[in-house]
Amino acid sequence: MKLTDTQLQSFERDGYIFLPSHFSAAEIKTLVDEVPALYAQHRPENVREKGSDAVRTNFAAHLYSAPFARLARHPRMVEPVMQLFGEPVYMHQFKINGKMAFDGDVWQWHQDYGTWKRDDDMPEPRAMNVAIFLDEVNEFNGPLMFIPGSHKLGVVDAEHDTSTTSYPLWTIDHDTIAKLVKHGGIVAPKGPAGSMILFHSCLVHASSSNLSPWNRISVYLSLCAVSNHIRRYKRPEYIAHRDFRPIECLPDDCLLKEYPVPLPWKDGTPAEALGSTVAA
Amino acid sequence: MKLTDTQLQSFERDGYIFLPSHFSAAEIKTLVDEVPALYAQHRPENVREKGSDAVRTNFAAHLYSAPFARLARHPRMVEPVMQLFGEPVYMHQFKINGKMAFDGDVWQWHQDYGTWKRDDDMPEPRAMNVAIFLDEVNEFNGPLMFIPGSHKLGVVDAEHDTSTTSYPLWTIDHDTIAKLVKHGGIVAPKGPAGSMILFHSCLVHASSSNLSPWNRISVYLSLCAVSNHIRRYKRPEYIAHRDFRPIECLPDDCLLKEYPVPLPWKDGTPAEALGSTVAA
Repeated sequence: MKLTDTQLQSFERDGYIFLPSHFSAAEIKTLVDEVPALYAQHRPENVREKGSDAVRTNFAAHLYSAPFARLARHPRMVEPVMQLFGEPVYMHQFKINGKMAFDGDVWQWHQDYGTWKRDDDMPEPRAMNVAIFLDEVNEFNGPLMFIPGSHKLGVVDAEHDTSTTSYPLWTIDHDTIAKLVKHGGIVAPKGPAGSMILFHSCLVHASSSNLSPWNRISVYLSLCAVSNHIRRYKRPEYIAHRDFRPIECLPDDCLLKEYPVPLPWKDGTPAEALGSTVAA
Repeated sequence: MKLTDTQLQSFERDGYIFLPSHFSAAEIKTLVDEVPALYAQHRPENVREKGSDAVRTNFAAHLYSAPFARLARHPRMVEPVMQLFGEPVYMHQFKINGKMAFDGDVWQWHQDYGTWKRDDDMPEPRAMNVAIFLDEVNEFNGPLMFIPGSHKLGVVDAEHDTSTTSYPLWTIDHDTIAKLVKHGGIVAPKGPAGSMILFHSCLVHASSSNLSPWNRISVYLSLCAVSNHIRRYKRPEYIAHRDFRPIECLPDDCLLKEYPVPLPWKDGTPAEALGSTVAA
């Protein structure tokens, strides 16, 4: 899996690359089938929506679910990121975001690298976001919205929003968003389950609520260049990982065959992964 | 202004008719220019969003704002409704809904006639909703979503939701919505400012939040067949009107010329229009 020159240019210009149907229906089914059991668990990695039992985000499933552990090592996902950074990558963050039918709440406008820099002391924006659709994404189930070109500004000012939703986020003020949109507009890639988006960690993004009867579950993987690993362990390890060993890819059919994978958190989250090792 | 047979058939089948650019930019400008002053007023007719100063809905502007009083008598809006009901109509409800940039909150799935029947004792669903776009409506600023064909079910069960947003609403449960959408899908008419939608008072509709930097202000007028006037005065008069005299249309250029119009609430809302005349 190699990105073409045209794809590399569009990433440079817009800050993202959209690859519709990058994984097959059969490949995605092994992941989708696993989600209800993961969301049903009561463990700290499941963050639920405000005022609802619906899961907003599940963290670190690649450490306790075999299908997701295989996805975390999939060459069709990892190799393009290595190509873009020119070095090996490790898993900085792994999420399965619910955006469930009727209950899925908004994510305010933000940049991911803003949080990684402020909270985790990641030196440079050399970590890539990868979104993989487990459900069809359409205009009604809260698609991810990007402001194309906004990644070129680096980190913009943000405020720590701890009240709007159930998950705290460094969010960007309205005037800045209005200016960025005036320049770049808004796009919302839509497509079938199995589609994949690579997007720059400084790309400003948001998503609306999901009032439709269709779930919009997506996996968000954040792969960081190994040399760029985080320096500060303020957030729990299940949110910001501290294992900087390079990802070793499995074969291309790893979502269809049961290759063995390590599942170190299968019997629960280790106590040391739940807390901070620095003062907040 | 007469609806064609094709338009009448699509109303019968889908429950709505979409008329893009039904009013010109110059006509809409006279309305848009008036909104900031209306929203700035602190009067009971302005309902603000939960946790924000942004106006969610403004009621009854046709009784205290000249441009909106003229819109309420516009033949291009009133005549199609009279054609559909075959009799004169009066103004049951008049709203300017904000759905403001960044702050505009959701409207859960509901039918308007459900509320008019339960709260206002309106005998039959012979009142029409008319939406007029004061801003461009696009996929990002919380467009109105319809479930085509859902008007054929009559009034479906609903629960009084007094907590999700700042305005109480009879909302429909998730299972019912899922079934209706399976049958009819979801549509969201989008178009320039000046577009108009006629939609059946039993058509199930909702709208998402507006995270974009673009306001999505729309006027929602509910015109009721005179013989079908409400029987119960439980809600304040500025929400459910009690003046059942037929609307008399102004000429077609009434948004461009300053025809005289009565503005009975110009100096404030009369005390008797603020309350209920029956026990709640």
